[in-house]
Formats: sequence, C-alpha cells, structure tokens
Amino acid sequence: MSGWLVIAGLGPGNDALLTGEVVTALAQATDVLGYIPYVARIPPRPGLTLHPSDNREELARARHALRLAADGGRVVIVSSGDPGVFAMASAVFEVLGENEAWLNLDIRVLPGITAMLAAAARAGAPLGHDFCAINLSDNLKPWAVIERRLRLAAQADFAMAFYNPRSASRPEGLGRVLAVLREECEPERLLVFARAVTTPQERLTTVKLAEAMPEMADMRTVILVGNKSTTQVGRFVYTPRRAE
Amino acid sequence: MSGWLVIAGLGPGNDALLTGEVVTALAQATDVLGYIPYVARIPPRPGLTLHPSDNREELARARHALRLAADGGRVVIVSSGDPGVFAMASAVFEVLGENEAWLNLDIRVLPGITAMLAAAARAGAPLGHDFCAINLSDNLKPWAVIERRLRLAAQADFAMAFYNPRSASRPEGLGRVLAVLREECEPERLLVFARAVTTPQERLTTVKLAEAMPEMADMRTVILVGNKSTTQVGRFVYTPRRAE
Repeated sequence: MSGWLVIAGLGPGNDALLTGEVVTALAQATDVLGYIPYVARIPPRPGLTLHPSDNREELARARHALRLAADGGRVVIVSSGDPGVFAMASAVFEVLGENEAWLNLDIRVLPGITAMLAAAARAGAPLGHDFCAINLSDNLKPWAVIERRLRLAAQADFAMAFYNPRSASRPEGLGRVLAVLREECEPERLLVFARAVTTPQERLTTVKLAEAMPEMADMRTVILVGNKSTTQVGRFVYTPRRAE
Repeated sequence: MSGWLVIAGLGPGNDALLTGEVVTALAQATDVLGYIPYVARIPPRPGLTLHPSDNREELARARHALRLAADGGRVVIVSSGDPGVFAMASAVFEVLGENEAWLNLDIRVLPGITAMLAAAARAGAPLGHDFCAINLSDNLKPWAVIERRLRLAAQADFAMAFYNPRSASRPEGLGRVLAVLREECEPERLLVFARAVTTPQERLTTVKLAEAMPEMADMRTVILVGNKSTTQVGRFVYTPRRAE
C-alpha cells in the first residue's frame, strides 16, 4: 500500500503564500478534495482527479479522502489558510477511528498561512502580543459559549481574531459580538476588518470599536481586535510587545 | 529612493515551509538582519550583506534596518516562524515614529508558518477549535499578567499554545505555569511538548497534565495545551470542531 493522505493549507488566496512542501504534495497528488472554491485554485493536469464538494460536507469529504488513500491514492485535502485552524484537519481525525485500517495510513498535515496572520501582516502587527482566535460561526457551538469566551478574552486583554464573523444565515450574530465587546472594552479599541487578504478583492478597514458595524464584514472577512495597548503609527496598526 | 524593508517569517526551521514570496524577497535583498541563528539560515551570495545580532537587541536591529532602507537598501529582517507572532514586526513599528522619513518607506510584513501551527500539524490538530497564544517570557510582562491570562484562558476553555516556555534565566517559571493549569484543568488534559519541529532535532511528546514536567521543555520548545474535549486517535492529538 503506497497511498497517502495530506491535509494541506493553501494560505489566504495568493499562490505566492504557498509553502514549498504544499506545492510538492500537490504536484505528486492523484486526487485533490476540498470545498469548491479551494479546489478551484488547483490547476487541472493529466493524472489528477479534482473532487470539489460543498460546505458543511466536511465529514463525508474526510471519509472519501481516507478511502481513496487506503486504495493507494496520493490524496490531498485542501483547506484555505491553515488546515488546523477551523478547517479540515480536525474533521479527518474525527472520522479516522471509524475504520481500523485508516489508522495505519501515511497521514500528514501541512501547515499554511492562516487568515488572521495574513491579515495581521497586511495591517502591521496587531497580534504582536498574546492573542486568541475565535470562530464566530454558531453552526458548531451555541451562542452562550461564544459570549463567554469573548468576555473572558477581553478581561484577559488578549488581542483577538474572529473567523467566520458573518454569513447570510447569521446576519445578527456579529451585532451581538460587537455589543459584548462594547461592554468589556473602551470605545477607542482598534479593530481591523480584513477582507480577502492577498487577493485582488483585498480591502482593509481600521476603525475604533465605537464606529464598528456588522456591515463591515462578510463571509470573506477576518476581524482583528487589538488589546488595550494596540495603537497606530503611520498607516500601520500594531500591538506592543510589552504589557504592564 | 528605491529602498524597501520587508519583515519576513522563515517558518519553523525547514526551508520547505518557506512561502514563495519570502524566497523572492530574500533573492532581491541587499541586506538581511536578524537574530544570529535565523540569519545563519540565509546562504551568503555576492551583493548581500548579512547582519546577525544578538537576542534582546530587537529595537536597535529595527532602527538599523530602517536606516539601511532609507539609504536605498533592499532590506529583509528575518524572524523565525511568523514575524507578527512574538517576533520582529512589533519591534519595527515601536520605533517607526522616531523619524518622520521612515513613515514613508515601503514596508511590508510577509507572514510565515508560526511555531504553534507547525507543531499542531505534526501532532494532528490540537488547535482545531478556539485557542490562544501566550508568550511565557517574563522579560516583557510581569508574572501576574501571565497567571491571570492562564486562568481566564482555562476558564474560557481555549486550547493554548505557549511560546518561550523555558530559558536558562527563568528555570522556575514553567513549574508555576503547570501549577496554575493543575488548579484550573483536569489531570487528564492533554499537552504536547513540541521541540524544534520540522528540523532534524524534532521531538514531540504528548502527556497528560498530571505527568507534565518543566524539564520536558527547553528554549526550542512550544507547548500546546488541549481544551477539555481534546483527545487522541491513533498517533494523533486533535480538538473536535464542535463545543457544547
């Protein structure tokens, strides 16, 4: 059995942010699986089968990939950003125990540039001190958990990164998030709404918490929230390395 | 004035984890600055001046790089991992306002694979749900801030990544961190001590909190702490995507 499964991060959008090891794995692959827009980034070639699938089909996609690898395929599941951050790696491990044979497969996770770090780099260094990453999608957890984490993170004075801040099915969620932040943080706190970073559609907007509005985010946005020391110099936003 | 300054992430150690845009910037550079072991990763070539400097000289290094770029140099400051995560990007912005001319320079931050995400990929997906990153060095903040953040992060049920967990000058700090975790978390909580990931010296050790010891870490280690749902399947550690 010479098959393998790689779970690879494609970074935020621009292929210049791919790592060499991901480029190599894709060049060797017989099968690439992933969410439709991510698979669309992979150029077709002879010997490669592309398997795009829809959102919310992560577990079915993971099982399909494991079956292909068990049959001898050189299989890559592609995620945007990093596969270990709100992406496909956990989904694969959630189903891995379903079949004893899968446990012995050659499985590797190849990291990628995750959205918050690409966004932070574009803005300056807003995550330059202790920080947290929170997925705001309430598909996977109840609102009460999100609210509790937001309050504790603000009280800890973490800088924060929010993934999946807004979707058509949850238009009101981000308004609630901003309301919680306004209870816990000062109105001058800096936020960066970073949309589609590193792509032609990139747009960065830096605002104070008092001015932040849910309409500043869409499905392609990651939001960065500074800590209480985050400041601006010239066109850059950064968080100092020291805390008192 | 055609000079520029790039603050680039070299990733965790293996050059296969460099991004294409960082490789390109390094190929164009006239000057590379950074901490001695990171500059040692850059092959010498005609036309390139290497400027290694010691740890804790971050602000002097940042000013030196800005002066070289203002004089027309194509300057790269190299960081291990990602320059925006406990690395050189914040140091540059901390001094940028000292000279009006520096504010107009072409400055770009190029992200890299940060240690916690490289370590997580090697272990499986321990950061697959909401998580935080904490720098345990008390050079830059008092112990009281570290302890408070640890307690609030545990109460929020974040998975955690600890940078700089142990150094010769702070042999006792990690013992205090583990003691706080033992007060806040159950003894079965999973920890991954990940040393020098992606290098020939790589060593990953997964233990329960009850068995964790400060001696399992050194200066080249990042520590990952699961949340209360983090579990093992086969040789992998992962955190499920859902929370109740």
